[in-house]
Amino acid sequence: MRIDLAAAVEWLKSRDNILILAHGNPDGDTLGGSFALLYSLEALGKRAAVKCFDEPHSKFGYLGSICSGDFAHDCVIAVDVADAALLGSGFKEMYGSKVDLCIDHHASNREFAAMTLVDPAASAACEIVLQIIRALGVKADKRIADCIYTGISTDTGCFRYANVTPRTMRMAAEMMEEGADCIRINTVMFETKTKTFIALEKLALDSLKMYFDGRCAVITVTSDMFRESGSDEREVDAIAPIPRQIEGVAVGVTMRERSDGRFKVSMRSGEEADVSEICAALGGGGHRRASGCEVAGPLEAAVKTVTDAVGKYLKENSLI
Amino acid sequence: MRIDLAAAVEWLKSRDNILILAHGNPDGDTLGGSFALLYSLEALGKRAAVKCFDEPHSKFGYLGSICSGDFAHDCVIAVDVADAALLGSGFKEMYGSKVDLCIDHHASNREFAAMTLVDPAASAACEIVLQIIRALGVKADKRIADCIYTGISTDTGCFRYANVTPRTMRMAAEMMEEGADCIRINTVMFETKTKTFIALEKLALDSLKMYFDGRCAVITVTSDMFRESGSDEREVDAIAPIPRQIEGVAVGVTMRERSDGRFKVSMRSGEEADVSEICAALGGGGHRRASGCEVAGPLEAAVKTVTDAVGKYLKENSLI
Repeated sequence: MRIDLAAAVEWLKSRDNILILAHGNPDGDTLGGSFALLYSLEALGKRAAVKCFDEPHSKFGYLGSICSGDFAHDCVIAVDVADAALLGSGFKEMYGSKVDLCIDHHASNREFAAMTLVDPAASAACEIVLQIIRALGVKADKRIADCIYTGISTDTGCFRYANVTPRTMRMAAEMMEEGADCIRINTVMFETKTKTFIALEKLALDSLKMYFDGRCAVITVTSDMFRESGSDEREVDAIAPIPRQIEGVAVGVTMRERSDGRFKVSMRSGEEADVSEICAALGGGGHRRASGCEVAGPLEAAVKTVTDAVGKYLKENSLI
Repeated sequence: MRIDLAAAVEWLKSRDNILILAHGNPDGDTLGGSFALLYSLEALGKRAAVKCFDEPHSKFGYLGSICSGDFAHDCVIAVDVADAALLGSGFKEMYGSKVDLCIDHHASNREFAAMTLVDPAASAACEIVLQIIRALGVKADKRIADCIYTGISTDTGCFRYANVTPRTMRMAAEMMEEGADCIRINTVMFETKTKTFIALEKLALDSLKMYFDGRCAVITVTSDMFRESGSDEREVDAIAPIPRQIEGVAVGVTMRERSDGRFKVSMRSGEEADVSEICAALGGGGHRRASGCEVAGPLEAAVKTVTDAVGKYLKENSLI
């Protein structure tokens, strides 16, 4: 059932012992939104905890501590989770059918929760969480400001992407005034590259291939590259935007080899293409400008599967 | 003479036939501020024109047209120009001592103009220009919004750097509401890499060397690399942030070979080092986190000159 913000806030006020779930392979928005909600509920004297199936990257440590033990709860909230499967394999089984309220900004939300609060106009789930916090009458302190700013800045590529609205900018301004450590957050999230990442980036750039007269660019990151650079899969996220940034490219693809030999595909586009369509045809999904899917290896077959799908889309939409 | 915003606005109201000068090798802020001012003065029925010693990069074409012919003027304004020398060699001679009003956000402004309006708290000269436009009673239309947004976003690395304030974010929000084409501007300024740049970036990453236990990283871009990649000096600006982004680096250096065999040095730092000090010792200058200078070649000697100065600073400030 879809509900509105006022209904979600009323429901929250009436609840206690609240388990908050971030999505698996957690990013700044799911963690920032979950912890901001946690601190706000605690400010109202409620018991709450944040759990996540996967261990967050250490760079997110300042947001808060994931509850790793038992937490006796009366209700479950999911933040930034478009589908029960995205909770992570173990959590899907455990909590997938038990989420009372899902707070999300993905238009593609599958409404797996009993109540769903979705605002696709929000650049980040954190924009919705901040509105909830205001409606709960909680003042955003520095911790909450750090969380909300992190979610908004990471989900917008630091205010760069098409999902940014004037509201996004004003919420960030407000969080700065509440003490969010923006410089440090932006430095950690956007301006820091590990030496292993630099090594991986060089190898990734070497793998760059262009298709369809330069309309599609593909970077492939293999297990060998991880070994040679000392990097790992989590660092590929920062590679994903590169192919699309090349002049003339309508669809940018980054393919990373998984330990099981399958390839995880990240697809990005500018204004021209809707990559969620291409990824849906390959069994995946996501946003218009940023989507993903998985395809079978080996490398050559995986590249062919993906470029065939991209070529078909480009042709059908008169982009080549 | 330093003047305040109200005095600058009163003076502007009383003037006509106004020549506006951007700085040489123009960036988004000097051009955005100059053209926003032009459109506002024209909206008040005044004659005005923008001139610049160097031809702007074609990506700035949407901001407006530089006046290349004669423009009979009664007064001269410089926007984002900290020193007469920055007008460019030819313009320094022609206009350096004839600027009536300089609008700038550099704390280092040399006050070469008869009247100087400086606000070092402004992330961009465009923040000051927008305040002038408001005080003039001109409504920011789409053209002005594009100009102001461009100046603010380019001078803050798209709202990423330490110079961003809540005011910066709110001004950007307002410009979005006035119709600024933010997505397209951000795509052009931050999300587009030419194929020649990608080729140059690979070569530049290959040149990366670390000094002083990883506290200083140096990238050198030689004339050979320009030839091999097909890129040119203007594309090096986007390389300059890379060395500083490496984990543990306090001072990041990018050195590009000029046609005369000298090296132009771009120095960047995070929170720890004040690179304007290091560059000043080498005859250059700039901001705390972003400065520049020039040193004599050949390559090995140039690198030694720069790393010696960096090492001295790091030692004196207990950063190594």
